[in-house]
Amino acid sequence: MNQSIIKYVLGKVLAIIGILMIIPVITGIIYREDEVFAYIIVGAISYLLGHFSTRKKPKNTMFYLKEGCVVTSLSWILISVVGAIPFMLTGEIPNFVDAWFETASGFTTTGASILTDVEAMSHTSLMWRSFTHWIGGMGVLVFLLAVIPMSGGSNINLMRAESPGPSVGKLVPKIRSSAAILYKIYFGMTVVQLVLLIIARMPVFDAFCITFGSAGTGGFGVRNDSCGSYTALQQWITGIFCVLFGVNFNFYYYILARDPKKSMKMEEVKAYFCIIGASVVIIFFNIMGMFNNAADAFRAAFFQVGSIITTTGYSTVDFNVWPTLSKAILVLLMFIGACAGSTGGGFKVSRVIIASKTVLKEANSYIHPKSVKKIKMDGEVIEHDVIRSVNVYMITYMAIFIISVILVSIEGKDLVTSFTSVAATYNNIGPGLAKVGPAANYDCLSYFSKIVLTLDMIAGRLELFPLLILFHPAVLRDAFFKKKCSQKTVS
Amino acid sequence: MNQSIIKYVLGKVLAIIGILMIIPVITGIIYREDEVFAYIIVGAISYLLGHFSTRKKPKNTMFYLKEGCVVTSLSWILISVVGAIPFMLTGEIPNFVDAWFETASGFTTTGASILTDVEAMSHTSLMWRSFTHWIGGMGVLVFLLAVIPMSGGSNINLMRAESPGPSVGKLVPKIRSSAAILYKIYFGMTVVQLVLLIIARMPVFDAFCITFGSAGTGGFGVRNDSCGSYTALQQWITGIFCVLFGVNFNFYYYILARDPKKSMKMEEVKAYFCIIGASVVIIFFNIMGMFNNAADAFRAAFFQVGSIITTTGYSTVDFNVWPTLSKAILVLLMFIGACAGSTGGGFKVSRVIIASKTVLKEANSYIHPKSVKKIKMDGEVIEHDVIRSVNVYMITYMAIFIISVILVSIEGKDLVTSFTSVAATYNNIGPGLAKVGPAANYDCLSYFSKIVLTLDMIAGRLELFPLLILFHPAVLRDAFFKKKCSQKTVS
Repeated sequence: MNQSIIKYVLGKVLAIIGILMIIPVITGIIYREDEVFAYIIVGAISYLLGHFSTRKKPKNTMFYLKEGCVVTSLSWILISVVGAIPFMLTGEIPNFVDAWFETASGFTTTGASILTDVEAMSHTSLMWRSFTHWIGGMGVLVFLLAVIPMSGGSNINLMRAESPGPSVGKLVPKIRSSAAILYKIYFGMTVVQLVLLIIARMPVFDAFCITFGSAGTGGFGVRNDSCGSYTALQQWITGIFCVLFGVNFNFYYYILARDPKKSMKMEEVKAYFCIIGASVVIIFFNIMGMFNNAADAFRAAFFQVGSIITTTGYSTVDFNVWPTLSKAILVLLMFIGACAGSTGGGFKVSRVIIASKTVLKEANSYIHPKSVKKIKMDGEVIEHDVIRSVNVYMITYMAIFIISVILVSIEGKDLVTSFTSVAATYNNIGPGLAKVGPAANYDCLSYFSKIVLTLDMIAGRLELFPLLILFHPAVLRDAFFKKKCSQKTVS
Repeated sequence: MNQSIIKYVLGKVLAIIGILMIIPVITGIIYREDEVFAYIIVGAISYLLGHFSTRKKPKNTMFYLKEGCVVTSLSWILISVVGAIPFMLTGEIPNFVDAWFETASGFTTTGASILTDVEAMSHTSLMWRSFTHWIGGMGVLVFLLAVIPMSGGSNINLMRAESPGPSVGKLVPKIRSSAAILYKIYFGMTVVQLVLLIIARMPVFDAFCITFGSAGTGGFGVRNDSCGSYTALQQWITGIFCVLFGVNFNFYYYILARDPKKSMKMEEVKAYFCIIGASVVIIFFNIMGMFNNAADAFRAAFFQVGSIITTTGYSTVDFNVWPTLSKAILVLLMFIGACAGSTGGGFKVSRVIIASKTVLKEANSYIHPKSVKKIKMDGEVIEHDVIRSVNVYMITYMAIFIISVILVSIEGKDLVTSFTSVAATYNNIGPGLAKVGPAANYDCLSYFSKIVLTLDMIAGRLELFPLLILFHPAVLRDAFFKKKCSQKTVS
């Protein structure tokens, strides 16, 4: 394993985290809060450590998929631990497990919180908390790719390990330019939402935090009732932007590249909007009786569907008290998730499409045993390898899910809590049902469960395999016998 | 589609059902119950109809997988409807949906009941109810294969459609002999359990019903507390035989064929016992505090694990009140199910093994991208096609499961009830949790939900595809335009 490049990338990540803490520091200065010192200290140390450890660029900057997975997993563990330290220093979340859970929940854009009273937090910490969503939404390493040069083939392995979805769409031949284009689209849409929310008279601080939360499809709010106390217009803007950030970013790229035909052809985006439409209609009729007028019910249905399918997790009402049909649909949407190539989590719409087509093909083979049909998407044949990996992904996905539910159920909370707490963190959504519902939070769980759920969040965000690879015996052995090996190479 | 052979097989099935009603008729005569007349009438009509419609054997007895699927699905719908008529005639279950649910639950060896007071039923009906388990356990069509001759290659298509598991193991070159061997083993083991239970002083009537229920891994009891009031010894015998009937029958065949080495090599059987062992140990420690002594707790844990993993569904205590960890494990076991080639349902242990190996292979490919390893089982390479079909099966399985949960949740019962009622019927287990737990029953559900669950039972028993194929547009079109086509052929 090329350990020097791994260390180098981790150093860069550390430096970037240090720089990014400028945002909460500015907030702290504006609001004159003492909490700002924690961010200044951690940010400075983190930047300096990262900067000095990466002064010498390693000669061999090549790395393979294995290194890509290891470096991605370690980066995400690193940022969630470093990002948690200020919360502990300010005393706002004194316990490490809680702080780690909250920060990992931020970076992985989950939005599950252990805070019982969000409004008691300092503006500085709230801003950092929401900003982690924005950073995590597009990915730290993709950001790295956009700003620092690496040698040729390596980048695809890094991007493949961090990007959501069954296959990485190279928009342009150079992966570095792809990353930069994605970040530009991301940044542009964030600004538009921010401006719209401010025009709609949302307090500026709230507007920043809510925008970061919806752009990253995270879901941390700054009020105890999430988005419940905002005006109807503000809720509509937030809900619509949640949905927009859940669209495959290639869609926007094609529009920008003046190729709207290609973007209209994207099956995944079509399916995504169909699923949203159908769910909104069913839930609307199901919950109508609980609201004073149809407009409120429709807004609540749209907001919740948009918030859940994109795995954001904001709520305007307590959907835990909705009828079982609506809750069942929401749980299903938790698993489907957003489009591949968006900031959202979950199983991804494109995987659902590929899986469905595989089933149809199998059913047809019973009728016409000799027909040989290829599975297509967007008019192109899907490679056999992609289909296989989607199948394998699904099985792995289920396996990790089941193991997690069993581990979380050890502490003895009810089944709905155990099941949906894993579903909501693993799919990077945020609120579950019952004891972890939108009106409650994750503070009631044991530390053991919180650690399991934190790892689930990271596994979900990195799409399982990078984290699994980190714990693969061969990789552990490699890390363990590292000195021996390098000595051998030297002698 | 070869419609004449489909009609012929359905006629034979009808005749067999008529004959099999001799068992409840004998019971009714012994107990001198009026209910016997319902069975005499239905049995006689069914036999005569079947007999006269199959006097002429069709010239073309060949049929392909498509016909195999269609005839299997139709047979199972036919037997569950015909079998339900006596319940309605005797007035014990007056409503058709209820009677169909109960009978389908019997034949599919589910064991889910809508009866609130089992002990109020006549002996005649109770015997028929339990006997349906025994018939359904091995399959009606496999029985047909064992007794009537068909032309060469057709049989495998019939057996493939009805037998549980990813691949049909032909024990001997001739499929008909295989079917006969399986039935002999099945019959032999049934007799042994029956004798043991009678020796253990279980009332003879109960012994018959409980034996039928465990042999078919069904789970209908004859007392309101399922197996709770039987003695410890009787419970041990029942529990152990549940586990034995969940073993792949090839295991017994190899032992009978004096090839114990081959039987010891069966990975699936090993894994099956390991899963049972691990689950019993965890649940035992988890529930120990709820019992007066360790022996009771251990018996309860073993009985419940054996009953659930084999998808039998007997219970000795109300496991709905057990801690969440135990309940989570039981729900997991519901999905894993028994061995392929046994009478049990669920996803099947062999599929779990193949799926796990696929995941391990994928993880390894990240580490050694160039290695080409084949997945093996019992020392033999698994064909690529089998792996693919396991993956596809899993996806279809999940899809049907999700759709069913949403349909059942329409009536607005709680999530645990909706979720586990589908899990318990779809996997042919019987009791779920909450409102459909072991101390409750399915009567509380709406007729719509009962119909959904009945179809789930049949889909689960036939392993999805045969029933799906029945509703495939091409098959429906074929059936619809039948006359046109045959006229064409004639002219």
